[in-house]
Amino acid sequence: MSDLISKAKSTVLTVKPYVPGKPIDEVKRELGLQNVIKLASNENPYPPSPKVLKALQEALPSVNRYPNGDCHTLREELSKFLNVKPAQLIFGNGSDELIVLAVRLFVREGDEVIIAQPSFLVYDIASKIAGADIVSVPLKDFHYDLDAMQEAVTPRTRIIFLGNPDNPAGTYLTQRAVEEFLAGVPRDVLVFIDEAYFEYVQAEDYVDSLGLLDRYPNLIVSRTFSKMYGLAGLRVGYAVGGEELCGLFNRIREPFNVNSMAQAAAVACLQDQAYYRDIARQVEEQRRYLYIELTRLNLEYRETYTNFIMVKVSRDAKEMTGHLMRLGVIVRDMSFWGMNNYIRVSIGTAEENRTFVAALEKII
Amino acid sequence: MSDLISKAKSTVLTVKPYVPGKPIDEVKRELGLQNVIKLASNENPYPPSPKVLKALQEALPSVNRYPNGDCHTLREELSKFLNVKPAQLIFGNGSDELIVLAVRLFVREGDEVIIAQPSFLVYDIASKIAGADIVSVPLKDFHYDLDAMQEAVTPRTRIIFLGNPDNPAGTYLTQRAVEEFLAGVPRDVLVFIDEAYFEYVQAEDYVDSLGLLDRYPNLIVSRTFSKMYGLAGLRVGYAVGGEELCGLFNRIREPFNVNSMAQAAAVACLQDQAYYRDIARQVEEQRRYLYIELTRLNLEYRETYTNFIMVKVSRDAKEMTGHLMRLGVIVRDMSFWGMNNYIRVSIGTAEENRTFVAALEKII
Repeated sequence: MSDLISKAKSTVLTVKPYVPGKPIDEVKRELGLQNVIKLASNENPYPPSPKVLKALQEALPSVNRYPNGDCHTLREELSKFLNVKPAQLIFGNGSDELIVLAVRLFVREGDEVIIAQPSFLVYDIASKIAGADIVSVPLKDFHYDLDAMQEAVTPRTRIIFLGNPDNPAGTYLTQRAVEEFLAGVPRDVLVFIDEAYFEYVQAEDYVDSLGLLDRYPNLIVSRTFSKMYGLAGLRVGYAVGGEELCGLFNRIREPFNVNSMAQAAAVACLQDQAYYRDIARQVEEQRRYLYIELTRLNLEYRETYTNFIMVKVSRDAKEMTGHLMRLGVIVRDMSFWGMNNYIRVSIGTAEENRTFVAALEKII
Repeated sequence: MSDLISKAKSTVLTVKPYVPGKPIDEVKRELGLQNVIKLASNENPYPPSPKVLKALQEALPSVNRYPNGDCHTLREELSKFLNVKPAQLIFGNGSDELIVLAVRLFVREGDEVIIAQPSFLVYDIASKIAGADIVSVPLKDFHYDLDAMQEAVTPRTRIIFLGNPDNPAGTYLTQRAVEEFLAGVPRDVLVFIDEAYFEYVQAEDYVDSLGLLDRYPNLIVSRTFSKMYGLAGLRVGYAVGGEELCGLFNRIREPFNVNSMAQAAAVACLQDQAYYRDIARQVEEQRRYLYIELTRLNLEYRETYTNFIMVKVSRDAKEMTGHLMRLGVIVRDMSFWGMNNYIRVSIGTAEENRTFVAALEKII
């Protein structure tokens, strides 16, 4: 270890870096396959809307100019869309960045961050880098144990992350559950609700988190254009919170953190709701199709409110994932999360899902 | 101040956020102007190369997929282009992000960071957020005072930032100066050389910093596609360093920090060097034009090795900037940097520069 490396923050060295789903190209190259489908990263499998493509075309010639640092037009449009003030919004290079910014704002070495186990890995990685002590609260049968999370709060707690719906559990928190939870959390603890899969939830009792912002100035809610809106490649997410809190986020973000193509595309997404409502319908239809097929194959699965399904496989998940990959289907091996018998499958197009089911049938 | 806000790191509150150059649209809107040119952000005023536009077109339909997290193709191409190993590269959401990552890796509260004064503001902002004590070393007649910077090193020094060429000074450091400097800096201090304007320098004694990486494992060199390569809107920069050091950066960056359009465009830039050499020639020609015109107008300016010029104005810089803006020319008021008699003007197209000179002549 060189002199310099020994001076890096020791917390950095304890972190297990995030391992993303394998890209299609890489699998083709490594396994010499022609046809590969990816159901590993909960992407929207449909192309962007024609209006989004048009907006991107129009933005192309100006890539030599810096983006608008405030996401001016996107901010105006989104604030109307969500009925919040422009100053209640913060934008990020994907909602990942907003998670990291929250940690950079509030977490010092030795502070505590409460995270469900398993949950989205970026909460854990960002907090560990900042030197936080992670307080892990196990899921109870794939649901958040909010009582245990509330009991875990100490004077050292700075942030509580709630994925809603959560990845990988796929379950959601109700209005009543979130209200009760917030009422019991000290006002000096940031409650960060990550609603990356918000647009997929159709349950009536799903929390209206934005409606709680007025009462809970320690609440912040993040969403993304990477999932339902299909802009994962462009990187744009946002969070909604109180103006004072958002002001802090704005102080520490980089001046041009959201690129100009992403800003243009996100505005077009908001203006083309019909296209995305149709995608939501297709996801629902395909979710039902997969439920039926998994039942037929005698495979246990978890009911989901997202665009992915957790499937219990009789054998080792790592092995199963390898088998599927050799048949050209990339899914997520959940053993990295400590769930050795689960694979996570994104809901693809009708054709992709048929391919997945056929591959599964071949293996089992 | 709410309960939560009081728990934010106090260092955040001391930071004066970065103020970017005003966007053209905003000036048009605010001043009711039809024709506005922007010479305030050191952008490349020319459109992207046809090959870059083609690469972007091809990347458009896949924006629904996450970017390659490792910048696989860009990494391969750039490593060949620079003749370094792929593992010696780190990519960022603009080179801004690499500055922030360096600080997040090495700086704890109370550590020291050495920065020239004035210099690029992001060094200062990122370091202050991390709680660093900033050790400011004044420029000496628009040049880095490397002796003073070396003398400023203490056991608490973690990073030294060198902009080369520097913004706003516009001057560069020679091979000999950098070698002597590195030889005198302890090996456990990161020397971060920011070469955002590298592609504009045509001086023979300009340092070959990549050639020093083998001897100095505490050196890292960042560059960007935002300036000469004209991709400011897309956000992609990189840094070159030792493999072990780059490994640390990779641990803490977000998994998808560089968007897929930026990756595709950057690869195309590398493959179209002729286009950018031509732009370099035009910048040189226009720099000479501006020197001649400024001399004619009896205005003092500083010789520059970048795509911007520091011009001394007889009156208050803020006032001058306001006058120019009302004539549709956005330049940078340097009083924010404490240089009350200077404006910074980016070298634009021939037409933009004529417009600037005409506006200047009208005012003085």
